[in-house]
Amino acid sequence: MTKIVIDAMGGDFAPRQQVLGSVEALKKDKDLYLILCGDKTQIEEVLAECKYDKSRLEIRHTTEVIGMEEVPTKAVKTKKDSSTVVAFRLLKENEADGLVTSGSTGAVLTAGVLVLGRLKGVARPALCPIIPNHRGTGTFLCDCGANLECKPTYLQHFAIMASAYAQTVYGLESPKVGLLNNGTEDHKGLPLQQEANELLKQTDVINYVGNVEGRDLMFGDIDVMVCDGFTGNIAMKSVEGCGKTISTIMKREYKKNLWRLICAIMSKGIIKSIKGSMDYEKIGGAMFLGLNKAVVKGHGNSKASAFAICIAQAAKAARGGLVDKIKVMIDDANAKLAAKAAEAEETAEA
Amino acid sequence: MTKIVIDAMGGDFAPRQQVLGSVEALKKDKDLYLILCGDKTQIEEVLAECKYDKSRLEIRHTTEVIGMEEVPTKAVKTKKDSSTVVAFRLLKENEADGLVTSGSTGAVLTAGVLVLGRLKGVARPALCPIIPNHRGTGTFLCDCGANLECKPTYLQHFAIMASAYAQTVYGLESPKVGLLNNGTEDHKGLPLQQEANELLKQTDVINYVGNVEGRDLMFGDIDVMVCDGFTGNIAMKSVEGCGKTISTIMKREYKKNLWRLICAIMSKGIIKSIKGSMDYEKIGGAMFLGLNKAVVKGHGNSKASAFAICIAQAAKAARGGLVDKIKVMIDDANAKLAAKAAEAEETAEA
Repeated sequence: MTKIVIDAMGGDFAPRQQVLGSVEALKKDKDLYLILCGDKTQIEEVLAECKYDKSRLEIRHTTEVIGMEEVPTKAVKTKKDSSTVVAFRLLKENEADGLVTSGSTGAVLTAGVLVLGRLKGVARPALCPIIPNHRGTGTFLCDCGANLECKPTYLQHFAIMASAYAQTVYGLESPKVGLLNNGTEDHKGLPLQQEANELLKQTDVINYVGNVEGRDLMFGDIDVMVCDGFTGNIAMKSVEGCGKTISTIMKREYKKNLWRLICAIMSKGIIKSIKGSMDYEKIGGAMFLGLNKAVVKGHGNSKASAFAICIAQAAKAARGGLVDKIKVMIDDANAKLAAKAAEAEETAEA
Repeated sequence: MTKIVIDAMGGDFAPRQQVLGSVEALKKDKDLYLILCGDKTQIEEVLAECKYDKSRLEIRHTTEVIGMEEVPTKAVKTKKDSSTVVAFRLLKENEADGLVTSGSTGAVLTAGVLVLGRLKGVARPALCPIIPNHRGTGTFLCDCGANLECKPTYLQHFAIMASAYAQTVYGLESPKVGLLNNGTEDHKGLPLQQEANELLKQTDVINYVGNVEGRDLMFGDIDVMVCDGFTGNIAMKSVEGCGKTISTIMKREYKKNLWRLICAIMSKGIIKSIKGSMDYEKIGGAMFLGLNKAVVKGHGNSKASAFAICIAQAAKAARGGLVDKIKVMIDDANAKLAAKAAEAEETAEA
């Protein structure tokens, strides 16, 4: 039985959508056990409407909630009985194999590091959402906001962790990794990108293909895109705005006259397919990589089905041994870097 | 008569599309005079196919071309008789009021600064393309690749120059300026964004609305988006890839079966309108702001009509006194900064 702990109070529509999503996930996966952290009364109210296997769901009552506007470090340190902190504590105490939350990103990042803890050897944990792409496979974008200021080794670790994730959870044999830059040539970018490009070339545990550009996030031939968290945030939100804009323009154009409305009705299936190909929610949440357990951060406005997908992601990561896989690959890369540094020192001494 | 000098040899389809575009521009604007720099024989070959007012077009024969792959500084310094360098020299020597080129961005940036020269008081010239947005007005994105590493004052100058451009060439009375950041709160971003945010707040020659996010590039309510050139490049190319991806998915979906093909044929007008709303080429080229004259950089793959729009942009900027407007606004901002620094010094001494 795979045990996943749920932060039932985090998110714009919590706890209702989180509870409904949990029930949906339980129905789809008979080998899943869920621990819901949150207000018992509120959770039970929603559960009363549902049919589900009661032997595979338990509630851990909590009395506090971390709001979206709170200062993360302060909130995590003071709200010890919040659903988010309690969920991470259960994970830390090995009561579960993974965690799903739609809570405040800042609080989740903070609780992940402070309560659960960073995986040994990993420079910095990072957020890795999957962005829809033209091939329908999705691009793993890492980091996407956890680390604004980065060093080349951080980017190397992001590349390794996202590769391990794509392999373990999505079965990609040898995911192609690109470094997000302002051009494909080797000399492109700021010192960070230039140095990271060289380091990634030497990292043989991943399939590095070189510098890539913003357009490759959705229209490229890569599986993993690596960047600092600031740049990742800009890229992700830029394509989000573009998608919204095209959708708005389509709606406007289809409503311009009666003939167009008829076309719209006829094309309903097509429009639905197009929207489906671009739907973030169907793809799942962002994996928080580099912690001691599998953690999935769902979108704040996740509805039940989207939340259920996040739970399935966490379960798959736990079963696939994502954390162990990351550990092996990071240790290998770190050992090679250390050996190289020692060699360089010897040469310098000689 | 407004005189615009044309780099007829720069671009993927040069000189043919550049010459055809020049002829198109001359037809639309009876007060326009063009000087085409490039290979006389090749230019005349294309002109022979066209009807145009011969009294308003002259050719300046050049013998060299700067290729897309050349190292910009080296190319500009050694290829003195290239169409790009000669065009900038004519501008410098006051033989024209503006310049249009689809040549290599690196060479154009270099020649702009080295041959034509930076406008006095401007910290760094910057590239300002216009990105289609949901309101149909376009967002002025500045900088978009000229300056990878920036200081807060650079960003302040980008904001001022892009505002002057939106006012002079597009008639926006008080363009709303946003700083591209990873969140809207004041504490967001790296030190560059945090300091630039404070500086922009104090810049009263512009209408600064605060931090904005990647999604606001196309889906926001701002007119000008300011950022360093690296971030601007990432944002612009990310939305480009998103647009291409949606277009690819639409094509695929509409071709899936006969019924869908019929829908596609019926919806032809709608699809054309949607594509039109997102068409970069119809919007024009990127203005290279902060030089001593109006310079427009067209897309490398510009066809005649797109190139003609770039010429119209340059003519409008020259007629509207864009460079003078920038000078007045930058001098004002610099004077205020200097006064403030002097005041702070006095307080410290007292």
